[in-house]
Amino acid sequence: MSQYHPPVLDAKFILDQLIGFDGLCEKLQLEDINIDLADAVLEEAGKLSSEVFAPLNWDTDQNPAQWADNSVTQSPGLKEAYQQFVDNGWSTLTAPEEFGGQNLPQVLGTAVSEMWQASNMAFALCPLLSIGSVEALLAHGSDELKALYLPRLIAGEWTGTMNLTEPGAGSDLAAVSTTATPDGDHYRIKGQKIFITWGDHQMTPNIVHLVLARLPDAPPGVKGISLFIVPKFVLDENGEPGERNDVYPISIEHKLGIHGSPTCTMAFGDNEGAIGYLVGEPHKGLPYMFTMMNHARQGVGVQGLGISDRAYQQAVQYARERVQGKNKDGSKKPIIEYPDVRRMLLTMRSGVEAMRALALEASAALDFAHADNNSKEKYARLELFTPIVKGWMTEFAQELTSLNIQVHGGMGYVEETGAAQHFRDARILPIYEGTTAIQALDLIGRKVLMDGGVALESLLSDMAATANELSASSNADAQAFGASFAQAVDKARAAKEWLLTNAPSEKELSQAVCFDMLMAMGYLCGGWMQGRTLLAVIALTDANDDVYGEEFLAKKRISAMYYSQCLLPRALHHFGVMVQNPQALYEFAVDQF
Amino acid sequence: MSQYHPPVLDAKFILDQLIGFDGLCEKLQLEDINIDLADAVLEEAGKLSSEVFAPLNWDTDQNPAQWADNSVTQSPGLKEAYQQFVDNGWSTLTAPEEFGGQNLPQVLGTAVSEMWQASNMAFALCPLLSIGSVEALLAHGSDELKALYLPRLIAGEWTGTMNLTEPGAGSDLAAVSTTATPDGDHYRIKGQKIFITWGDHQMTPNIVHLVLARLPDAPPGVKGISLFIVPKFVLDENGEPGERNDVYPISIEHKLGIHGSPTCTMAFGDNEGAIGYLVGEPHKGLPYMFTMMNHARQGVGVQGLGISDRAYQQAVQYARERVQGKNKDGSKKPIIEYPDVRRMLLTMRSGVEAMRALALEASAALDFAHADNNSKEKYARLELFTPIVKGWMTEFAQELTSLNIQVHGGMGYVEETGAAQHFRDARILPIYEGTTAIQALDLIGRKVLMDGGVALESLLSDMAATANELSASSNADAQAFGASFAQAVDKARAAKEWLLTNAPSEKELSQAVCFDMLMAMGYLCGGWMQGRTLLAVIALTDANDDVYGEEFLAKKRISAMYYSQCLLPRALHHFGVMVQNPQALYEFAVDQF
Repeated sequence: MSQYHPPVLDAKFILDQLIGFDGLCEKLQLEDINIDLADAVLEEAGKLSSEVFAPLNWDTDQNPAQWADNSVTQSPGLKEAYQQFVDNGWSTLTAPEEFGGQNLPQVLGTAVSEMWQASNMAFALCPLLSIGSVEALLAHGSDELKALYLPRLIAGEWTGTMNLTEPGAGSDLAAVSTTATPDGDHYRIKGQKIFITWGDHQMTPNIVHLVLARLPDAPPGVKGISLFIVPKFVLDENGEPGERNDVYPISIEHKLGIHGSPTCTMAFGDNEGAIGYLVGEPHKGLPYMFTMMNHARQGVGVQGLGISDRAYQQAVQYARERVQGKNKDGSKKPIIEYPDVRRMLLTMRSGVEAMRALALEASAALDFAHADNNSKEKYARLELFTPIVKGWMTEFAQELTSLNIQVHGGMGYVEETGAAQHFRDARILPIYEGTTAIQALDLIGRKVLMDGGVALESLLSDMAATANELSASSNADAQAFGASFAQAVDKARAAKEWLLTNAPSEKELSQAVCFDMLMAMGYLCGGWMQGRTLLAVIALTDANDDVYGEEFLAKKRISAMYYSQCLLPRALHHFGVMVQNPQALYEFAVDQF
Repeated sequence: MSQYHPPVLDAKFILDQLIGFDGLCEKLQLEDINIDLADAVLEEAGKLSSEVFAPLNWDTDQNPAQWADNSVTQSPGLKEAYQQFVDNGWSTLTAPEEFGGQNLPQVLGTAVSEMWQASNMAFALCPLLSIGSVEALLAHGSDELKALYLPRLIAGEWTGTMNLTEPGAGSDLAAVSTTATPDGDHYRIKGQKIFITWGDHQMTPNIVHLVLARLPDAPPGVKGISLFIVPKFVLDENGEPGERNDVYPISIEHKLGIHGSPTCTMAFGDNEGAIGYLVGEPHKGLPYMFTMMNHARQGVGVQGLGISDRAYQQAVQYARERVQGKNKDGSKKPIIEYPDVRRMLLTMRSGVEAMRALALEASAALDFAHADNNSKEKYARLELFTPIVKGWMTEFAQELTSLNIQVHGGMGYVEETGAAQHFRDARILPIYEGTTAIQALDLIGRKVLMDGGVALESLLSDMAATANELSASSNADAQAFGASFAQAVDKARAAKEWLLTNAPSEKELSQAVCFDMLMAMGYLCGGWMQGRTLLAVIALTDANDDVYGEEFLAKKRISAMYYSQCLLPRALHHFGVMVQNPQALYEFAVDQF
């Protein structure tokens, strides 16, 4: 299997040079935290991911989680890996100190999370979902629920799951039909949830299920959904796992990928009713879900980044080793020397670096919003980024993991090579945690049309400033980048105006054009990050920097220039298709397809 | 599993209206063949494919071919399916009458082949490869070899395989190291071949392997490769399978997809040496391979078409049945009514229809070349199409089969749905029979630069004529299509000029830009076919046609217009990226990636 080289230096570069990590920590009043500490954290996470998680990745795929007798056993080796993760305190990284967390900035948590996802995505889904339940409880749980559950979840002693989807309720949560009936100080939950990631396993003595269900007096639709906490083992008077609760995995899915992640159908209350506790107020389940959406959705975007980088690294390794044809001097030629192989590798590398920078920028937006008392403007930037990070990065990951197979040629189609696993694993990403269409609708509807384009215009202004800075540089690369980027920003502004003009009067227009807008914004945001990278590289080179070194900076420049020439044009293409708003979409009757 | 609806009417429309099937048959002096007979053939093929092959597709995936004791047993059910295929004479369709064939035009064979590929790609690979060995023997075999092998191969009594690839010789056939040593009237073949599709099975009493190997006096490189025929059972004096030859499958691959197609490592001559017979002259193996390249490569392109159509049909079926959300009147809303789902379905439908028309146009180019005594000009058109059909259609199939999963949402990721199988099966297509890079290099090098762009300019002229005809129409759709298409043709001409100017002086430029040129040409050719479709639709509508019916014609129009607005712009995008010729490609040292 391919080795994994954690991108410690690149993450440090982005945190330090593009995000301004030290300044952020100051704003967050985290006095002892700085870029050197972040670097040390990245280094340690890199070790665990490359030495423990990555070597398990292929075995995990070949020995999927097993279901028997309403119980799931995880793939071999994962329990021990999880214990190392917990023992080293990784689950506590960004959680509040009050409940045992280390209170580090989210952006550092994201940089670290990339490494978990890259090294073993199926496994890393488990802690990713636990963070979701922590966030929900932190934001909306009573003090009692917080005291009972948060320290254990944050310590990683227990894991958490999210139970939203039902057979008839996927993208449309209005159709949730699971019920919650009051029964003394708690509720009895009855219903079935599907596609529950890590819904059961034997890695921890308890599992905390967060469940959407309806109270007896609930109004119909999304305004009648409440959020409940349903532990696998009901806590006893000492807060320890006691009686087995009436919630069981009744099957697991046979999936294309992420075989190490058990995807469960969960039966709540098939017997006496599962004991559940209301989180927050009745009927507020959906807005509560939205409060943790930013983190969960960006987290899936980061999975797209991680698995793309892993695929890139594997492709490079193979392209160096595989020889085909000869050089003029008769020596054998590794395929990495062929321009078309380089095209594939640079598409991957440049794409990955753009995604990494965007993921950290978007994650830092949460930190900056916190630092600024969740100011409306800062929060709007965060919210604007979220569907782009989730939607674009997971779609892009499809292409990049597929390129790894292509670089391998016939060997890429043979399962033992491992390239196919990354490709199979990646295919879930544009589906779960809200499909690409859901992200695209969120972007165009809630994030652009709802505020009349204000948050988008603010972002585009910042981009235009970057374009100006690039164009004003004395560096020829910067000038060329600036010219292309300015054109892309202009096109984005025109598309925004077109949207604001036409969407209100044409009912379905937003839905028709949202996908292309999402993809266009993704490539544009990637271009912004690569443009800022180029500016930082030029400044560091001019200052004879010796932190990152000449070679690192030279490579970043090449990657940025490749992006501006070969990937940024995709933004223009998608903006162009977007404003076509093809009438053909509406002309087919349902039975005519 | 999803049903398969063979595209009989659409194939008939393309043959009749775009290709001019009756005129072609006249040119080929096939007096009894016309569009009505073609229609009947398509109808019958449709039945076998939808009633016999398609229902086996999922079982074949789940019960892969098995290897044991140097022998392969095919998936259950395939032997019987193959027998039906043979009994109904399908293997003889386009073969010459002299050896028992029906001598029908290639273009009809291609239309039929799409149905085999769509209904069961892993299975249909077997007869596809047999045709390859028939073509090689027809073109280059001695009369004796022809008499011994052709009638059986054409009748489907025996199957044929192609043995090119070795562990060190994939895209680079110069590295072939299998040897052939003279031994009386035959040769002894020794060596190992990998990735041999349908290298062994129990469906027929003999298998005919065509093998590339080197004679003792062979010059190095591609000019020292000869072609041999190596039967699994050596023929006795009556031409019947006799002694077991020394060629064995020593393992099969565990692959991402096409599980029903055994991919063998073949050991030739591990014991006494496999008996082989030279085909044609010594050292001409590679040019001989090229003579059947057009058919084999276009055949793989047709696999991309077939599997994309199958994926489209499955997506439509699911999108009609799956309800999410409600209409204003409270009725449940099938997801097919949502514009973004329609975007996905129309991308698939419009793409599939463009591919089908192009596949038939390209296949008919072979017939027209034959009819015209293989005139240089007609043959050049055929040769120009081949890499486009193979490269573009198999790359496009990746996106289209992936969209099927996306339409299915979470269900698409569950293997039992079957959407994942099409996606997994499709992933081999841009790899085997020459990777996309090999196609792209062939296009730019042998098909464009070698003749100074003459064949390409001839194609672009024909396209420009179509653009003019569209623009000159009184129909508003045609005018809009014509304007977009004229722009795309102009861009293609500019890209061609840029290439002819710059490629000769810049050694690696062709390799650097070939992928984007290939994709651009693919979307452009698809646009040409859709433009001609639109013209035919308008003419038929104006003439109150009652062969295809109003609804069929209306749907073709919608599909064409969608293509011009949303898919044709991709040609412009790729031509634009092509002429960037990014220097970044050359700047990374091998160890810097």
